[in-house]
Amino acid sequence: MKRVRTRILIALLLFPVAAFAKDPLPSWNNGPAKQSIIAFVEKVTNPGSPDFVPTPERIATFDNDGTLWNEEPLPVQLYFVIDRVKALAPRHPEWKTTEPFASLLKSDMKGVETGGERGLVELIMSTHAGMTTVEFEKIVNDWIANARNPKTGKLFTEMTFQPMLELLAYLRANGFKTYIVSGGGIEFMRAWAERVYGIPPEQIVGSSIKTKFEMRDGKPVLVRLPELNFNDNNDGKVIGINQYIGRRPIMAFGNSTGDKEMLQYTQGGSGARFELLVLHDDGVREAAYGPARGLPKVPLVQFTPELDEYARQNGWTVVSTKNDWKRIYPFEK
Amino acid sequence: MKRVRTRILIALLLFPVAAFAKDPLPSWNNGPAKQSIIAFVEKVTNPGSPDFVPTPERIATFDNDGTLWNEEPLPVQLYFVIDRVKALAPRHPEWKTTEPFASLLKSDMKGVETGGERGLVELIMSTHAGMTTVEFEKIVNDWIANARNPKTGKLFTEMTFQPMLELLAYLRANGFKTYIVSGGGIEFMRAWAERVYGIPPEQIVGSSIKTKFEMRDGKPVLVRLPELNFNDNNDGKVIGINQYIGRRPIMAFGNSTGDKEMLQYTQGGSGARFELLVLHDDGVREAAYGPARGLPKVPLVQFTPELDEYARQNGWTVVSTKNDWKRIYPFEK
Repeated sequence: MKRVRTRILIALLLFPVAAFAKDPLPSWNNGPAKQSIIAFVEKVTNPGSPDFVPTPERIATFDNDGTLWNEEPLPVQLYFVIDRVKALAPRHPEWKTTEPFASLLKSDMKGVETGGERGLVELIMSTHAGMTTVEFEKIVNDWIANARNPKTGKLFTEMTFQPMLELLAYLRANGFKTYIVSGGGIEFMRAWAERVYGIPPEQIVGSSIKTKFEMRDGKPVLVRLPELNFNDNNDGKVIGINQYIGRRPIMAFGNSTGDKEMLQYTQGGSGARFELLVLHDDGVREAAYGPARGLPKVPLVQFTPELDEYARQNGWTVVSTKNDWKRIYPFEK
Repeated sequence: MKRVRTRILIALLLFPVAAFAKDPLPSWNNGPAKQSIIAFVEKVTNPGSPDFVPTPERIATFDNDGTLWNEEPLPVQLYFVIDRVKALAPRHPEWKTTEPFASLLKSDMKGVETGGERGLVELIMSTHAGMTTVEFEKIVNDWIANARNPKTGKLFTEMTFQPMLELLAYLRANGFKTYIVSGGGIEFMRAWAERVYGIPPEQIVGSSIKTKFEMRDGKPVLVRLPELNFNDNNDGKVIGINQYIGRRPIMAFGNSTGDKEMLQYTQGGSGARFELLVLHDDGVREAAYGPARGLPKVPLVQFTPELDEYARQNGWTVVSTKNDWKRIYPFEK
């Protein structure tokens, strides 16, 4: 009896993967997307396979907004900006008559948009800089503990994609290091990503502003400056991967034109590679946007017909949220 | 018999640390430095201790030159620069009459030094930029496979410090993630650090130049540009730690004024913290340089009397290579 228990213990220690043997991705419908993921993971982790990849090289990179969690009607960090501008407005009476602040304070998002990227950068700098890194982390944590999606009333952190959470766990159980590589703010994501995705701060690559080292009352602090350090979008994702990780991913996951270069770079390496794009075509359970395949065009993010065609030509897996995902959010039964 | 073997197997699986139980740091003489390291590791890893630190927060950062490997008579990367300038000289006839190249080609290091930091940056840009990241990695690997210290005739990669290799292994066996945070070039170190120190590319923070994403013959590449991206020295080390790791280290190791801010930042966190500086006072077995404690002043790196005094006042451990290290290099018996 004791010996049997001992054997089970050894089996559990040696083969943690066995726990997934039944179905590692229960929220994925059986279909080409799910099959392509499992076939890839099996061939790169099988020591007898010609496509075997040693554990340290099993790097998988994930875009965040629209890939790991919902980004509609707006990317979550924009709600943070909006709430911060409103909270700081009493200290900035001039904002009432200065764009893009005036439009934002009137909840006129069309007006904010006319300010373009420059207006957006101004909004970010005025809300993300001027405090220490420790203070900023607390601001984000306090906010995200209560912030809710205006459409569903759910916490933003509840609106992660269940199939992708399963995928993260499945890859980690197979020796992968999972990374976020996102256009979003690196310190914004680091504040909660470990709790929400199990991804630690050192595995998050994102856009950043500059910081300055200072001794304040004999204590060392980093002060956040209103100056862009790094824009982690498009080719920036490749530059960021090289800078932070220093290895080429063997799997990459995204959902928009901003992820194209990351997937190209992943595919450009030697040996087995895997690229996947999430196409949001389920307007009933989540949100439908493209403009690929006749889906509505929305502001800020795009899955264009050109990207769709490029994916097809290059053998990238395209996930249809409508057909490939059995469940969208963890709170669904 | 089989059952006994099974038990041993379980013991090995569950307690890899047990292998170190006798003496985790055999190349360290018994003394306050060794004792302070072991006492710290024991208290932060003991779940019953008030100083217990959960595994994900066990971050230890190490300077490289003079901390993990020898940097005398010159930091290793400078030998790389010298050899690259000589190799590229036939394509640059103008270098014969342009400083700092002219001095360097005549092996006149005093002449090179008069060019100051600007000259050094010029040397680095002309030897580290213009190729793809993949090409640069190959250049470094080809060079380091054969490059030798002019004083000892040993490969540079043989001149790592045995006590520090033991320390890296000891910390990793106790759940620490070990990082290099060095003023040296990030891609220069990444090419060989995993093989030499067991530290993977994603755990290396260093100085960097900018890169540019390009498609060449349908293949994505990153081209190295002659433009500084990040200077990972002094306060740069703190900025780099925040940018790359996103967590404050609980242990930090250095050997010069360039490491002071990293150790200050480490100490500035809450909970138990550990800071250590290596003082090279063994001119017989390695190299003696300061100028602290009357040791000779050398170019480029400094352990000043002020740093020595600051360490004393703040309870930082100072290692004397002469007294604290039983063995300096792995090749010594």
